[in-house]
Amino acid sequence: MTEVYNDQYYMSRALKLAARGLWTTDPNPRVGCVIVRDGEIVGEGWHEFAGEPHAEINALQMAKEKAQGATCYVTLEPCCHYGRTPPCTDALIRAGITRVVASTTDPNPIVAKKGLEQLMKAGITVSSGILGAETEQLNPGFFMRMRHNRPYVRSKLAMSLDGRTAMASGESQWITSQEARRDVQALRARSSAVMTGAGTILSDDPRLTVRETELPPFMFMPKRIRQPLRVIMDAHLSTPPDAKVLQEPGNTVIYTVSLNETIRHMLEKAGATVVVLCAVNGELDLHAVCASLANDYHVNELLLETGSTLSGAMLRAQLIDEMVIYVAPLLMGNKARGLFNLPQLERLNQHIPLNITEIRAIGRDWRITAQPVYGSN
Amino acid sequence: MTEVYNDQYYMSRALKLAARGLWTTDPNPRVGCVIVRDGEIVGEGWHEFAGEPHAEINALQMAKEKAQGATCYVTLEPCCHYGRTPPCTDALIRAGITRVVASTTDPNPIVAKKGLEQLMKAGITVSSGILGAETEQLNPGFFMRMRHNRPYVRSKLAMSLDGRTAMASGESQWITSQEARRDVQALRARSSAVMTGAGTILSDDPRLTVRETELPPFMFMPKRIRQPLRVIMDAHLSTPPDAKVLQEPGNTVIYTVSLNETIRHMLEKAGATVVVLCAVNGELDLHAVCASLANDYHVNELLLETGSTLSGAMLRAQLIDEMVIYVAPLLMGNKARGLFNLPQLERLNQHIPLNITEIRAIGRDWRITAQPVYGSN
Repeated sequence: MTEVYNDQYYMSRALKLAARGLWTTDPNPRVGCVIVRDGEIVGEGWHEFAGEPHAEINALQMAKEKAQGATCYVTLEPCCHYGRTPPCTDALIRAGITRVVASTTDPNPIVAKKGLEQLMKAGITVSSGILGAETEQLNPGFFMRMRHNRPYVRSKLAMSLDGRTAMASGESQWITSQEARRDVQALRARSSAVMTGAGTILSDDPRLTVRETELPPFMFMPKRIRQPLRVIMDAHLSTPPDAKVLQEPGNTVIYTVSLNETIRHMLEKAGATVVVLCAVNGELDLHAVCASLANDYHVNELLLETGSTLSGAMLRAQLIDEMVIYVAPLLMGNKARGLFNLPQLERLNQHIPLNITEIRAIGRDWRITAQPVYGSN
Repeated sequence: MTEVYNDQYYMSRALKLAARGLWTTDPNPRVGCVIVRDGEIVGEGWHEFAGEPHAEINALQMAKEKAQGATCYVTLEPCCHYGRTPPCTDALIRAGITRVVASTTDPNPIVAKKGLEQLMKAGITVSSGILGAETEQLNPGFFMRMRHNRPYVRSKLAMSLDGRTAMASGESQWITSQEARRDVQALRARSSAVMTGAGTILSDDPRLTVRETELPPFMFMPKRIRQPLRVIMDAHLSTPPDAKVLQEPGNTVIYTVSLNETIRHMLEKAGATVVVLCAVNGELDLHAVCASLANDYHVNELLLETGSTLSGAMLRAQLIDEMVIYVAPLLMGNKARGLFNLPQLERLNQHIPLNITEIRAIGRDWRITAQPVYGSN
């Protein structure tokens, strides 16, 4: 009983450490590790940047010889394969760790449970499943990519209280406050990629970058800020080569079904990577794009920042996992644009139900976090 | 300093007592009273029903001879005129009260400050203004009616998270949960009147009544529940004489500009009071209706439960003081109906700004309370 209580306590500490990697570990998961001997924390670590040491290695380095006979709490099953760094299982065995508690097993089917098995073979006591839901919540994109071969898609929306997102003219950038825009900067900073449609590029010409000076104050400030990959859905290659996204630091990939080589070369010359996919009814196959983002670009969390056409299409394709809606305290009336372009529902029960998981004030605006419940009707 | 502290303490108790009249005092204000002698509460009272004793009289009855030399805390300046009951000032003087603290002076310009003056003339120490904002907040309708000759208008709205209120077909009654509908019952129960448009009568045929069994559990349950006056805005007298509102307990008044006597007599035979007003561009003058509701029906709080046409018109006329919006956790898409029919805004800064004063969960829905800020653009 006491041991179970302690397991939760130390794993919760490991989770807090893991969260420090929120902005930096991409495309790796955020992982934390605590090493405990005789009720004393002798080592702590977390993974910070891909290519740099894993959480376990950092914790072992701190524990040094105190790792002998200690228990290792780690939020993700230790790796047992050579990647950009040597396997953590070997290091744990060498250090004399006698018990390993993992919050979750590796969701990557190629290596799942192999790390724990290797530790067991070395005589180490292993267990897993403590605070597993919390670990998954911290890594929604990594788990989604490993299990379903697509990113976790978060749709960022801004609307007036009566659900309108822009004037008929398209003017929309400034309906929310500075605090809300800072909050969006934090959403971008944690995302592997930011997706928009060519229509938004043409009407708003957004930069889609993380601006360090516009970030809200972080609990734990990372050493450096990544620029998320910018993804433009552009079936007919209408992105202008002088679009701002192509001039900012970081990379831009344009998905298209257009075979126009002249425009493609112009965009490539402007710095974009253009990926041509097979057309489905003349349009992009959203599932194929998401699979490509997972396979070719290792995108864990994808932030969707776009208008009602692409948002509606992603929703109908059941590819939106979470919505973050900024609600500005104003009314725009029913001539302004809505959030989602959806086909006319014939009966009320054809709506898309949501789970609202959080509502909180952000400056003078309110932020609503909700998850669509697909297939319940 | 101590006295000021005590004044706030006892007035806050008087306010709590006043709130017990929330459902019953109409058309009178909700008033509470505490009588204190030597630091001890010797009398408490509140006003319960129009025609029955005022708060001060109830508190004096409890205090009996202990009122001699005591301080009386009352949320509204004591009346000095004969209404349906004799003046409270006389009773306070007779009982030997030596100090009267009023939260607010009477907003009725005919009697404002006259009660306090009469008490002063009798040698009583008077003061006013303690927790005045709270007293006004408890009686928004009474203060609005006395000062501006119109009711305080609360607009009840139900929408999906994307700001849609009904299918194009008009089907809308059940987008929110049972808990939200119970909450609406409480809004009706505190209102002097409930207003809708003939269009809503024709499409939804609502009852607009308070159903005692559907009320949420009250902190203080009233002895009996009033039925608010039902008000139908019906420029062209299209309300069917067999509409449910005309068959329910309580009274219904229909405002119209139609001179069709045949239909008018049919509706009157069905139990309605029909008020014919002068047409303005063939339509009802919303300000004239609100003045009539204040003058002829003593309506303090008016609950607006209607569709986007009348809601939009009331908003444009700057007659909505508060919105209570129930947000159901679902998406309906941009083909469904919006909340407010407003003219197309040409620029984003032509929106109507709001103060959001509360957001809270009601069952699986969320309730947003907001106040429009008129004339700020």
